[in-house]
Amino acid sequence: MSTTGQGAHAPNVTMRDVAKVAGVSVATVSHVVNDKPGARIGEDARRRVHDAVAALGYRPNALAKTLSQGTSRFIGLVADQIATTPFAGQIIHGAQDEAWKHGFVLLVANTDGNAEVENDAIAMMLEHQVRGILYSTWFHREITVPAALHQTDSVLVDCFAPDSGLPAVVPDEVQGGRTATDELIDAGHRRIAFVNTTTPSPAQTGRLTGYREALAAAGIEVDDALVFPASPEQEGGYLATPQVIESGATAVFCHNDRVAMGVYDGLRERGLRIPEDIAVIGFDNQDVIAAHLRPTLSTVALPHYELGAIGVRVLLGLETPADATPTLVACPPIRRRSV
Amino acid sequence: MSTTGQGAHAPNVTMRDVAKVAGVSVATVSHVVNDKPGARIGEDARRRVHDAVAALGYRPNALAKTLSQGTSRFIGLVADQIATTPFAGQIIHGAQDEAWKHGFVLLVANTDGNAEVENDAIAMMLEHQVRGILYSTWFHREITVPAALHQTDSVLVDCFAPDSGLPAVVPDEVQGGRTATDELIDAGHRRIAFVNTTTPSPAQTGRLTGYREALAAAGIEVDDALVFPASPEQEGGYLATPQVIESGATAVFCHNDRVAMGVYDGLRERGLRIPEDIAVIGFDNQDVIAAHLRPTLSTVALPHYELGAIGVRVLLGLETPADATPTLVACPPIRRRSV
Repeated sequence: MSTTGQGAHAPNVTMRDVAKVAGVSVATVSHVVNDKPGARIGEDARRRVHDAVAALGYRPNALAKTLSQGTSRFIGLVADQIATTPFAGQIIHGAQDEAWKHGFVLLVANTDGNAEVENDAIAMMLEHQVRGILYSTWFHREITVPAALHQTDSVLVDCFAPDSGLPAVVPDEVQGGRTATDELIDAGHRRIAFVNTTTPSPAQTGRLTGYREALAAAGIEVDDALVFPASPEQEGGYLATPQVIESGATAVFCHNDRVAMGVYDGLRERGLRIPEDIAVIGFDNQDVIAAHLRPTLSTVALPHYELGAIGVRVLLGLETPADATPTLVACPPIRRRSV
Repeated sequence: MSTTGQGAHAPNVTMRDVAKVAGVSVATVSHVVNDKPGARIGEDARRRVHDAVAALGYRPNALAKTLSQGTSRFIGLVADQIATTPFAGQIIHGAQDEAWKHGFVLLVANTDGNAEVENDAIAMMLEHQVRGILYSTWFHREITVPAALHQTDSVLVDCFAPDSGLPAVVPDEVQGGRTATDELIDAGHRRIAFVNTTTPSPAQTGRLTGYREALAAAGIEVDDALVFPASPEQEGGYLATPQVIESGATAVFCHNDRVAMGVYDGLRERGLRIPEDIAVIGFDNQDVIAAHLRPTLSTVALPHYELGAIGVRVLLGLETPADATPTLVACPPIRRRSV
């Protein structure tokens, strides 16, 4: 127990100081402060300790407590990209809120997807006796689990590894694709294009499955000529737009909001109005784009906050994952003005 | 010292285990592992300890080490918004890279600007004996310092509090405004509009000062009729565009990339080409917008990564802040296709 501060700060108050002011032993202070069950402390002594703690501004040393109890109140969170999009920030936000609710604190490490940094980060977390580790990626994908993750309880967030034995929490891409398509069907569209990504991923296959399921459920024939591959960004959407127009589609489901941003540019250049001439729906709900395009973009949200929160609940055993399959988190529709 | 893991994991290896395998005392293991100066340990014993550490996969307990040394290797980072933009993520990224370089680990807390959460976060950090705290905001502004920050070494990042006595690290808004304007002047423009924010802030006054300085330095008369107030987002830029066109400006400096995105929409609706009819420069370098508008947006970068890294250097005493004024970090130009 000592001070990390420098001269300018109030000196740290120790348990010994509290004992002196309260007129009791250090052991008594420790029992009261740590709320140990079974310790017989008189009401009067207990009150005097509490008064002294308040008067001196004593803070229990969390590290000492961790050591004496043998478990820490840390949960590690490894993220591969926190500087590129707000997605990792949303996972961290959800994980932190849920962790704090249960008295845990997050140790966050950003790895930039660098294996060496990742190993260092996990080693650091293990050295700090974390209760467990959330291992997260900024987009939903299959991963190879770093071996060190098996040295503690770990949960995969926004990623999965089928044979690892580790629980995983991921977005429900199929339901999300169905929801996006349903939004367009419900607005009266029957000829619906899908600008999908060219990148193999659970989002690519899942959203396509959802698109097909929604059409089939509405009795609309699935026409693969209406599915256009595109690089999953503005440029891809822009380049795909002429084919979408040519296909005679009255509505287009875009793989993500960035693709939709490019489709907006493409439609505008040809003088087509959204949603009057062609309705557009995106995916991700990336606020800086979706909420501010003209017109604002209807989309389906990726539930990053919930992924982080549920990841913590699974780690702490508060939520039991179904079987050996990833826990699926729903992607809700966000209705704006483009449908 | 004990295990936080559950049944499935390899049991934690203790110093006692290492001592047994190496055939030395626990004290000897401790001396070797903690690399204590002055301890006389024979080469042979030292080698046997290292071999046993490697064979058993022993990890020193960082918390025990912290307690025995009396200082922790934590730096706290309080952020008000990590889920909204990538800005806080970039500050965290820079702070982490720099902290790790010096053997420190970040404890990150997101507060959503909620004072109660903030107090809890700072208390948690103090309990963990942090070496100090970086207190950061996601946009540059003046703040009132939470009292608890004075209980340890603290550095303000992307914010400042003149009478607090705390060092601050902020972007150089004046230089940034000058740089943006210079980019337009260097491209041959003389009649340059500035769509500034309506929100009072260091960015509002600093960028305007920089704009005026650059014009004056180029011998261009400053015409306040060319400065247009706008809400600092796409909608504001869109609404200001007719006045910008009417002013006869051949180039426009936008308060941020979101305003530029709205100006793009406004110019396009009127059939004006960028940069042929009007050149546009933004501010922030928010990648998802600036790198993907059509044409891609030239802008000035907010140096969030550097703010975080320099914040850590100031905290650790590796960089000495100039006087009592905030340390200014340069905002570099990012050249794309809109100028």
